[in-house]
Amino acid sequence: MTRGKLLYEGKAKRVYATDKSDEYIVEYKDDATAFNAQKRGEWAGKGETNNAISAHLYPLLEQAGIPTHFLGRLSEREQRVRAVTIVPVEVIVRNVAAGSFSKRLGVEEGTPLPRPVVEYCYKSDALGDPLINTDTAVSLGWASEEDLRRIRELALQVRDFLVPYFEARGVRLIDFKLEFGKLGTGEIVLADEISPDTCRFWDAATGEKMDKDRFRRDLGGEAEAYAEMRRRVTGGA
Amino acid sequence: MTRGKLLYEGKAKRVYATDKSDEYIVEYKDDATAFNAQKRGEWAGKGETNNAISAHLYPLLEQAGIPTHFLGRLSEREQRVRAVTIVPVEVIVRNVAAGSFSKRLGVEEGTPLPRPVVEYCYKSDALGDPLINTDTAVSLGWASEEDLRRIRELALQVRDFLVPYFEARGVRLIDFKLEFGKLGTGEIVLADEISPDTCRFWDAATGEKMDKDRFRRDLGGEAEAYAEMRRRVTGGA
Repeated sequence: MTRGKLLYEGKAKRVYATDKSDEYIVEYKDDATAFNAQKRGEWAGKGETNNAISAHLYPLLEQAGIPTHFLGRLSEREQRVRAVTIVPVEVIVRNVAAGSFSKRLGVEEGTPLPRPVVEYCYKSDALGDPLINTDTAVSLGWASEEDLRRIRELALQVRDFLVPYFEARGVRLIDFKLEFGKLGTGEIVLADEISPDTCRFWDAATGEKMDKDRFRRDLGGEAEAYAEMRRRVTGGA
Repeated sequence: MTRGKLLYEGKAKRVYATDKSDEYIVEYKDDATAFNAQKRGEWAGKGETNNAISAHLYPLLEQAGIPTHFLGRLSEREQRVRAVTIVPVEVIVRNVAAGSFSKRLGVEEGTPLPRPVVEYCYKSDALGDPLINTDTAVSLGWASEEDLRRIRELALQVRDFLVPYFEARGVRLIDFKLEFGKLGTGEIVLADEISPDTCRFWDAATGEKMDKDRFRRDLGGEAEAYAEMRRRVTGGA
């Protein structure tokens, strides 16, 4: 399997065509960005770490009945995925108030939410991924009502799998962002990645942040935190 | 019916207790505010105009099967309403892209929406009425799922009544904001007001703005526009 044309370059990944029309290669970069790319950085090993964590989790999600784009890890930085059209609606699932949610709504960071909150953002770097709702997504043609119902259902299934998974590894899953894609058949599958870039992970014992907030908030130790998360998720793989 | 204790003072109205425990008096002020009260003004007749327009529309909505808080106009500036507890979730119904929606999502002002969009904001001056969704409102205890379902249903019924009503009077209803209240019985009723303060009205022939955007955007002629809207809605009452 060899890389073809570069199809898309995002803030942390590149997507390439392959010689199979229904498969892409995703390459994880070491770049880190925050606040809609107003803050930029990078550290060695970030791409490998996120690739390893995602490549470990996606097959487990598949086993739990959640269809994903993942096909296999190709190299330290690369994975094979099914060719999808990304639905331009990012999904944030929140278990505990943190980040923009806390700031926007005046809810102290760390406040547990009595039931999970699913938020939707329009995937647009130019607009800073603005918060939307499903009415807006349907009205502006970004997704159908049926697709959004399925996306919500899958997002909550992902949550139900991940919360106890991380709990068993001494990690509280505070919130996470998912992206979904559409196969040629119209089927919705989980795409993108699940990593310290896209989740808030707090150490269950100490409350220490083990995710991109270390970079966003200049806390330091981001490479160590990501490596520790990789160790806890994969057991060292 | 005499005014009792001042219960609430908002940006454009005051609410008073009365000698009946299940009735309030609402007084419409001449004050105008925009951008979460960062911009302030007032003009003579504004309170009277908004009172007249709301007092004309609410009985028509009641006739159309939409329960409201309205009981009757008491004076130029005052109306009697049923005592409600306001649900702290503002509802915005959009027929055409405009204002914050256009800005946030990069959709040109004036673009018709293929289907109406219902948005929800948390009613909080301190936080600037932030955009939320129904998950958030339920999770943070601002409204029950059942109440929000009813609120959405009523908001769309209000739209279905108002769009042709204004169309027949040469006015395009671009978008509008509603607030709902809860009676002691738990019943949800339409509260607040429907006026050029809370709606975007564009003249159907000329596209001229006939609402608070004249004040927000320093277009001038706000008193005249409000008076014209009163004339078109009430026929001069």
